[in-house]
Amino acid sequence: MVETIQWTAQGVVMIDQTRLPRVEEYVTCTTYEEVAKAIVTMVIRGAPAIGVAAAMGVALGVKQARPETLDAEFEKICDTLAGTRPTAVNLFWAIDRMKRLYAAVKGQGIEAVRAAMEAEAVKVYEEDIAINKAMGANGAPLVPDGKTVLTHCNAGALATAGYGTALGVIRAAVAAGKKIDVYADETRPFLQGARLTAWELMQDGIPTKLITDNMAGHFLKSGRIGCVIVGADRIARNGDVANKVGTYGVAVLAKENGVPFYVAAPISTLDLTLDSGDQIPIEQRPAKEVTEVFGVPVAPENVEVENPAFDVTPARYVTAIITEKGVARAPYEESLPALAK
Amino acid sequence: MVETIQWTAQGVVMIDQTRLPRVEEYVTCTTYEEVAKAIVTMVIRGAPAIGVAAAMGVALGVKQARPETLDAEFEKICDTLAGTRPTAVNLFWAIDRMKRLYAAVKGQGIEAVRAAMEAEAVKVYEEDIAINKAMGANGAPLVPDGKTVLTHCNAGALATAGYGTALGVIRAAVAAGKKIDVYADETRPFLQGARLTAWELMQDGIPTKLITDNMAGHFLKSGRIGCVIVGADRIARNGDVANKVGTYGVAVLAKENGVPFYVAAPISTLDLTLDSGDQIPIEQRPAKEVTEVFGVPVAPENVEVENPAFDVTPARYVTAIITEKGVARAPYEESLPALAK
Repeated sequence: MVETIQWTAQGVVMIDQTRLPRVEEYVTCTTYEEVAKAIVTMVIRGAPAIGVAAAMGVALGVKQARPETLDAEFEKICDTLAGTRPTAVNLFWAIDRMKRLYAAVKGQGIEAVRAAMEAEAVKVYEEDIAINKAMGANGAPLVPDGKTVLTHCNAGALATAGYGTALGVIRAAVAAGKKIDVYADETRPFLQGARLTAWELMQDGIPTKLITDNMAGHFLKSGRIGCVIVGADRIARNGDVANKVGTYGVAVLAKENGVPFYVAAPISTLDLTLDSGDQIPIEQRPAKEVTEVFGVPVAPENVEVENPAFDVTPARYVTAIITEKGVARAPYEESLPALAK
Repeated sequence: MVETIQWTAQGVVMIDQTRLPRVEEYVTCTTYEEVAKAIVTMVIRGAPAIGVAAAMGVALGVKQARPETLDAEFEKICDTLAGTRPTAVNLFWAIDRMKRLYAAVKGQGIEAVRAAMEAEAVKVYEEDIAINKAMGANGAPLVPDGKTVLTHCNAGALATAGYGTALGVIRAAVAAGKKIDVYADETRPFLQGARLTAWELMQDGIPTKLITDNMAGHFLKSGRIGCVIVGADRIARNGDVANKVGTYGVAVLAKENGVPFYVAAPISTLDLTLDSGDQIPIEQRPAKEVTEVFGVPVAPENVEVENPAFDVTPARYVTAIITEKGVARAPYEESLPALAK
């Protein structure tokens, strides 16, 4: 299996997710600025993976910062990484975690601070894999046997430190002996479903079919889909879910056809400070993601484009939210804070 | 404005819709087999345009057929053209129309038969433009002023002899002074929205924004969409509508958000022999349309693919069906046969 992200002596190593599946190339970010750029350009993406990258970015920045201006540099490192992408809350969660640790250890001398930051970043990475496995165990019983699971975008090993959130639940269901196959939405414009999800699942030998996003309704209506499982970039206190654009449409179509719609996400994706999904900032991405595919123009020159990277699925469409601490159901205002304790 | 299809002394001339918008190239089909191939490969597409192409294909075949075996050749010409694509009923409607005329004139000698077939094909073409203008006039009052119209696929001049069905209604609303703009779904896998609809509307100076298919729900929820207007490939007696895959999803999302969902189609798109949309054959297209974009691979090699070209929108999601003879509303079992009389 491919490694999404790794801490090495040379820097933070990531598989370049802009070039998969046809090119498997690892890039090494040797400065925190390079880590920030990798997040912006989606060399690495997926809410939990962005969190791990941010933690490692902070540790890398501290490793290279000048001891005499460490406090100021630390603030700049955190601000730069926090400014990369606005929607996935795991980014801010990871930076906050590194900030808390920094505040606790900053008096201990530069080498001790550096070692503590590095250890914490590696811990965020390792915990993420364990969290995904726990989520898989909690979610697997929900997956109907003998049917197809529909998923949108990539909430797999490539979106996390490993194993995956939504795809982790699928992997756990397969490991538990369930006979399932997967329909993967291609997920325009960035094609995470076609390029990443299909590729990941084929490597694991899990039967997978690729469809375009606009086919999801047709297959949800057909009766063959047993459930939908997706990841999340931020979940508000009331259970509203921000996830890759198109998730809302899939959720409405699932409900309309009586198909359960599950969200798999770690507790770090919860943002209990927000009353509802209306408060979640939605990132607007460059028009070229829509007008070009691998550099090939697919639309008229100078066409105007909207490119919101995420949408918000109201909680009423969400059958359950699968976390590493258990499965939350409506009313989410009660179940989510209880799980997060 | 571009010409979708034309009858000329050299053959049937079409703009190659597989290469638009970056290359504007006309191809000349010099045999009926070439017309059939152009329909299969989607050099020409769109239900009404396919009907026109089929009529011209029959006329071209008769023009080149040997007089001594005309009956047998006529049957072969019709069978070949009827075998190109299964879903759009306009294809069969046009061929049946040419068959009825052939039966009426076949005794009149080869030159008279050829002249009659050619005149009928040109009449199908000319009638289609007039029908679209009438549809526009009937539909324009339904379009909310000051809002955005969402459309899926291309039901424009390029899908017809000219003016368009869904885009004809938009053109008529603009001509009537309404201040509207258009959101065009890109419409994977063939990208008719990105390549054809956006291009057509930009040429007319109608403000247009391109979105990916999976963004439609986000914008329908936002409140800015005043109505959805799409075309159709076949409409059953009960008002169920087969149209480009993804239409069903847009219709469900429109209803969920209280946005009117209109279908604009000529009477020739009605198939009153079918009780419901369940009986409409859905064409499966090649996997490469999904796995490659202009020849560039966007998915893992050997990935399995589903590629249904159409889906069926149950009549309960359809606010009204706009035809050249008037606007039909539920119960469609009554309103559609009444209009078709």
